[in-house]
Amino acid sequence: MLARLRARLGGGPGQPGLMAPLPGEVFSGDDAAVLLPPAGRLLLAIDLVVEGVHIDLSLGSLADAGWKAISVNASDIAAMGGRPLHVVAGVSAPAGTDLDEVTDGMVEACAAYGVALVGGDLTSGRHLVLSVAITGTCDGRDPVLRTGARRGDLIWVTGPLGASAAGLELLRGARTESHSGLVRAYRRPVARVREGVVAAASGATAMIDVSDGLSQDLDHVASESGVGIRLTSVPIAAGASLEQALGGGEDYELVFTAPEGAPVVQAFEAAGLAVPTRIGICTADAGERSLEGHPLPITGWEHSFRSAR
Amino acid sequence: MLARLRARLGGGPGQPGLMAPLPGEVFSGDDAAVLLPPAGRLLLAIDLVVEGVHIDLSLGSLADAGWKAISVNASDIAAMGGRPLHVVAGVSAPAGTDLDEVTDGMVEACAAYGVALVGGDLTSGRHLVLSVAITGTCDGRDPVLRTGARRGDLIWVTGPLGASAAGLELLRGARTESHSGLVRAYRRPVARVREGVVAAASGATAMIDVSDGLSQDLDHVASESGVGIRLTSVPIAAGASLEQALGGGEDYELVFTAPEGAPVVQAFEAAGLAVPTRIGICTADAGERSLEGHPLPITGWEHSFRSAR
Repeated sequence: MLARLRARLGGGPGQPGLMAPLPGEVFSGDDAAVLLPPAGRLLLAIDLVVEGVHIDLSLGSLADAGWKAISVNASDIAAMGGRPLHVVAGVSAPAGTDLDEVTDGMVEACAAYGVALVGGDLTSGRHLVLSVAITGTCDGRDPVLRTGARRGDLIWVTGPLGASAAGLELLRGARTESHSGLVRAYRRPVARVREGVVAAASGATAMIDVSDGLSQDLDHVASESGVGIRLTSVPIAAGASLEQALGGGEDYELVFTAPEGAPVVQAFEAAGLAVPTRIGICTADAGERSLEGHPLPITGWEHSFRSAR
Repeated sequence: MLARLRARLGGGPGQPGLMAPLPGEVFSGDDAAVLLPPAGRLLLAIDLVVEGVHIDLSLGSLADAGWKAISVNASDIAAMGGRPLHVVAGVSAPAGTDLDEVTDGMVEACAAYGVALVGGDLTSGRHLVLSVAITGTCDGRDPVLRTGARRGDLIWVTGPLGASAAGLELLRGARTESHSGLVRAYRRPVARVREGVVAAASGATAMIDVSDGLSQDLDHVASESGVGIRLTSVPIAAGASLEQALGGGEDYELVFTAPEGAPVVQAFEAAGLAVPTRIGICTADAGERSLEGHPLPITGWEHSFRSAR
């Protein structure tokens, strides 16, 4: 299995693959990968995708699980304004799991993000756990942290929210026929990597990806930056509810703050990307969390299945 | 929990901790850690420690599990001749797990290896899975791969083998009173980081850590280097059997090859480290795997509990 993976993914020394190692680099096949990242600061993150918590294999395929494990990590890099470089993947799976299918999903996602899968670990286990660690670079720019929002900064989101939560609800009710977009949003979330880079370049002061739900993720930014949050409107994905848009996790849109006058619209237009929606403003009242003048409920997204276990 | 962890481990921006971030670095608390690794090639690895596969919580503590998760990763870096820099840790644990105890073991190991724990992910799960990814550097030297052994190279091992397997057998039989060294070797394996650096500096051509058992790990080196293996003797840990020394995994001693005349003994003595034992020679017959003229059994270490599940 590891040898097959290696052949597909970049190989050992001298072996071609999906993303070829540079001279001096070694991908899988040794105790550690040997990499030549760009000089300067390196981004590093890890995220787990756990059967029964983040995924239910009755509602999606093993390839979907592999895709998601890569995407949630790429999203962590995107939320820093960075560009993902390398991933290493740990897979713990029960005997009989079709590991090729898991790999298919991972490879597809790596190709989509231009990331090299450079190593991994494979072990048995009672249920499927996918653990991916990822590196990234900001190409010399400062990373966009959660701490940088200032009062008066406008709040932007890169796309409509709630699609993943709506897709999950449809799948649970087995009503999926006419809503393939919502189901796909749940099964195959896409990290907004280009959007994150453009947001950073256009002056974003703070950024986070919507993994736990807009309310909760914005609450993190507000708490760590010491500002209040006053939302005027929230873009809701077609077929989703306001509750799903505010509290549904796993959309992986990016939410960022930027000073009034930052060239956000121009930068996204110039990059050929959908223009983000302006959803509110950061206020001086650090305790404020409001939407259209009403208190914003800070409800966390219980990743999919925690409550159902 | 994450906030407590953060306070202990290096903190968010500006917060002190076990290993303080450099100016421009950000450890846990954002979507990704921001790191300033040394320029040049970066080592990256991931290893999982899974309850029921690598650990049995009736035979060791949660802190032991945390220690092991860090150590097996540090050992991957050691086996490249590298020095570990940063780890990110993913923890998936059933409700009620004492995560502070897991963290205690991780922190203790990080301190022992001088590694900074810079981020992580925490999620629920049906059994304990610890997933650690690690970075490292060879400080400008070439990494020592599995592919570099040449015929005529001598084979060295950094210490006696079989202690971990013997410790596990004692624990399973509940006969642990007078064998604390063996039990400790199983519960608290130590990555040979300094030994790996010295081996690399003294001319090692190939290196691997003994995680799956000497026979199997040497077989990897031989296969990837295209040489045969002729062992003359194997150092056996006091209280362990030859079978445990050859087939027992998780000792995390380093096995390396070096040309005759390489200053291995002098380098280890100069560093104040125990001198490695010369156990054999690489031969031109790529199919040879022998010990004292007899075929060497290539039996893999079934990590602890796979067979018992």
